[in-house]
Amino acid sequence: MSNGGYVRNAWYVAGWSSEFDDSLKRVVILEQPVVMYRTSNGLVAALEDQCPHRLLPLSKGKRLGDDIQCGYHGMTFNCEGHCVRVPGQDNIPSSAYVVAYPVQEKHDIVFIWMGDPDKADADTLFDLPQFGNDQWHAHQGDALHLKANYLNVAENLVDPAHVSFVHPTTLGNAASENVPVHVDTEGDVLVAWRWIRDAPPIGFFQKFGGFSGNVDRWHYYYLHLPCTAVIDFGSADTSMALEEEARDDGVRIFALHFLTPVNEHYTIDRWMHLRNAAVGDHEASAQMDDLFRVAFNEDKEILEAIDEQELLPQSRKPIRLAIDKGPSVYRRRIASLIEENRE
Amino acid sequence: MSNGGYVRNAWYVAGWSSEFDDSLKRVVILEQPVVMYRTSNGLVAALEDQCPHRLLPLSKGKRLGDDIQCGYHGMTFNCEGHCVRVPGQDNIPSSAYVVAYPVQEKHDIVFIWMGDPDKADADTLFDLPQFGNDQWHAHQGDALHLKANYLNVAENLVDPAHVSFVHPTTLGNAASENVPVHVDTEGDVLVAWRWIRDAPPIGFFQKFGGFSGNVDRWHYYYLHLPCTAVIDFGSADTSMALEEEARDDGVRIFALHFLTPVNEHYTIDRWMHLRNAAVGDHEASAQMDDLFRVAFNEDKEILEAIDEQELLPQSRKPIRLAIDKGPSVYRRRIASLIEENRE
Amino acid sequence: MSNGGYVRNAWYVAGWSSEFDDSLKRVVILEQPVVMYRTSNGLVAALEDQCPHRLLPLSKGKRLGDDIQCGYHGMTFNCEGHCVRVPGQDNIPSSAYVVAYPVQEKHDIVFIWMGDPDKADADTLFDLPQFGNDQWHAHQGDALHLKANYLNVAENLVDPAHVSFVHPTTLGNAASENVPVHVDTEGDVLVAWRWIRDAPPIGFFQKFGGFSGNVDRWHYYYLHLPCTAVIDFGSADTSMALEEEARDDGVRIFALHFLTPVNEHYTIDRWMHLRNAAVGDHEASAQMDDLFRVAFNEDKEILEAIDEQELLPQSRKPIRLAIDKGPSVYRRRIASLIEENRE
Repeated sequence: MSNGGYVRNAWYVAGWSSEFDDSLKRVVILEQPVVMYRTSNGLVAALEDQCPHRLLPLSKGKRLGDDIQCGYHGMTFNCEGHCVRVPGQDNIPSSAYVVAYPVQEKHDIVFIWMGDPDKADADTLFDLPQFGNDQWHAHQGDALHLKANYLNVAENLVDPAHVSFVHPTTLGNAASENVPVHVDTEGDVLVAWRWIRDAPPIGFFQKFGGFSGNVDRWHYYYLHLPCTAVIDFGSADTSMALEEEARDDGVRIFALHFLTPVNEHYTIDRWMHLRNAAVGDHEASAQMDDLFRVAFNEDKEILEAIDEQELLPQSRKPIRLAIDKGPSVYRRRIASLIEENRE
Repeated sequence: MSNGGYVRNAWYVAGWSSEFDDSLKRVVILEQPVVMYRTSNGLVAALEDQCPHRLLPLSKGKRLGDDIQCGYHGMTFNCEGHCVRVPGQDNIPSSAYVVAYPVQEKHDIVFIWMGDPDKADADTLFDLPQFGNDQWHAHQGDALHLKANYLNVAENLVDPAHVSFVHPTTLGNAASENVPVHVDTEGDVLVAWRWIRDAPPIGFFQKFGGFSGNVDRWHYYYLHLPCTAVIDFGSADTSMALEEEARDDGVRIFALHFLTPVNEHYTIDRWMHLRNAAVGDHEASAQMDDLFRVAFNEDKEILEAIDEQELLPQSRKPIRLAIDKGPSVYRRRIASLIEENRE
Repeated sequence: MSNGGYVRNAWYVAGWSSEFDDSLKRVVILEQPVVMYRTSNGLVAALEDQCPHRLLPLSKGKRLGDDIQCGYHGMTFNCEGHCVRVPGQDNIPSSAYVVAYPVQEKHDIVFIWMGDPDKADADTLFDLPQFGNDQWHAHQGDALHLKANYLNVAENLVDPAHVSFVHPTTLGNAASENVPVHVDTEGDVLVAWRWIRDAPPIGFFQKFGGFSGNVDRWHYYYLHLPCTAVIDFGSADTSMALEEEARDDGVRIFALHFLTPVNEHYTIDRWMHLRNAAVGDHEASAQMDDLFRVAFNEDKEILEAIDEQELLPQSRKPIRLAIDKGPSVYRRRIASLIEENRE
């Protein structure tokens, strides 16, 4: 349960595309302050948010074209981080630069690479085939700010077992309490899943699936290391006897969570979903957001209470249960990746 | 003046009886979070307020009969701290338990034992013969929350000398400034006392004793280690020439203070009184509470200012005066008890 | 950029004269709490604000004539810091004293000496010949509270280069961006200065000098170590071809800044000015205050952002530029003075 460090060589979500315009926006990711803005060609630039001279955040300065002029003594940096002007002298010292971070924008999401720029590969960006498919509706929700370590938030997203207890009226119900969880931790993506067959529909699908009788319900939790979760969940009338691979024939939702670690005790969880029902129905989107907000605030309450509790001195090690296989493997994998990054 | 640790093998007041019902109440005592609730048989249970699995406070969970179900994954504990259910598996690991604390309830006060349960002896609970005597009126006041170390609060309660300066209009007056204090530190209970004879009555007894002429006034400060103080104070008309052992013939009040150390910089002082005047007069009780509140807030202002000041770096050791005998012995005794507990 | 300690053998401004009366005022200077008050002879006394007995701040006590009685047990100290009474005992221990700080009052400013009292020399108090000259108007402004280290605040006051970027509409404008700064760091007072000749007047002198055409403008930044800055600035019509030493023939202002380090992250900057224009015009004073307030809050925003940024872990050393000569020498001199004080 020790929370030591971050995987640097990875894409993190810096925000939805709509969060960036030509103003200077300070964001903090993996404890690094970054200033981000959209340049004249429409691309998003990301620079270390600190002048190398007196440390004033560049976001306190102003834009001169695509460059940023520091608000203290006017040192000016272009969007690649190179200093292009030092008022009061002609030469520009070689140490006059700021770090520039690789940025990619895809599916209206802005990703930033916090590690070695030479390893930033756009082909490794998160993707789903349902993006851009007109049988599917993609909808960006909101950003949940949690005073909690990202590892605790992430393991909550590869943990189907908590749903019955944390979300009894929204995403879970008592029918699933004792249904065992399958876990596959072999591949690059961890998966934990279970089917609850022939049981009453949960609140969510009573509302959006129109189900009244018993349903077969599934929850697949995919965790893409380090910080992206895809929860594939849905329901189908029990009479359909739905096979596992035929989930598209039911009402199916992919809830995506992009975690951005701000510091050891603060994480932003940007969440959105894709669905194969109510396509184009913006009222349904808004209603789902409301319901997700209720559910995710249930997680937030729990995760923040745990964060406070972990700060207290502890006399015993936490115990591990059968349901912890996914979270345990996740933490081991993260530790290995941090170790690799170090080498 | 170093504030190192707590006496664990002792009864502490967790609250008045009226503070506990069937809801889950989190309290923090000696830095230990505890969840307390009244079970179906009317007794108060007290468990470590932290699930051994993911550390969520159990007070965030819910009651199932007399058990508590954790709000994260449903681990369930009975009121003795034993785990009775782990959802998703049949066996219950031996490490699946929480600490249960001995609790006793007496005179409408709930006491908790924070140390070795085998040493918890109900016969050592604080008591006074005046409880339950119909010549005496017992009245529970309030809880004073102080941002101060409990040792500083306690020594204020074995320190008659401060009364003239901190409480000049309520519990003291200038007549006592130079009256020497007697101290007896031989027994299990420390006592500091003085009589101020043939002097004007203090504000309190002008109001409640109806005294207008000079009185003989006494203050006995009994400190029961570690954290209970009894202040026996009263007045009688000087013409009575009251002897020390005949204090019941005057207007006599026992002000009780039960200190609960929350952490090194936070103490709750629950205060109440017993009196041999205005028995059954609830309006008098309310008026006394008002007056005590004024006086105890005078202490609070002083003790919190000292706590802040103690955090600053100090270049000299505080000096000790003649009036410090009670406080000095108290601190030495506490240090010994902490040492004993360690062994 | 390391901020280690304070120069103790120096006069610091504790406040304007109007800030002190017969009440007990707690101020914190160089992390030392001090209680200050005006005694019956009109002088200001300054004592360590902490009783040597239980550490209660004496400012929580009360005055008895020119003495202070502690609010906890009545120990009483005269304005030289000697204990004159210990209630409950006849002898006064030799350790019963508080530190008394030398104080001087001059030009309606109260100065305090925080180091070795034997070295406090009133002849070394800050002065300017324009004080008390009826051709000049002296006006006390305000106190700017900054969550920033005093070294960063001070170097901002020997740094003409920032004016163009931080104060573009008040104290600077773009005309000066590339005008080189002269620095003389030989004497006891550091000086950085520049003239901007034949350029449009800055906002301040458009308002108060009545200039509409081009002017010759000067900025002289004098830094008296450790913590007093004098900014001599002014303008004259370019047609006058003003010589450097004839600045009194233009509209000339001395802006004074007295920095009081409270702790490593908090500084009070008391600012005032003397001017050779609008003498006796109190409305002009008020208007200038308003304008200075705008400008100094521009500095405050920058300096507080830097203070926060300096708290983050840093992977490189800040770079130094040509414009940094004054600040660099200032920091070296301060480090030497702290070293000298230590010996």
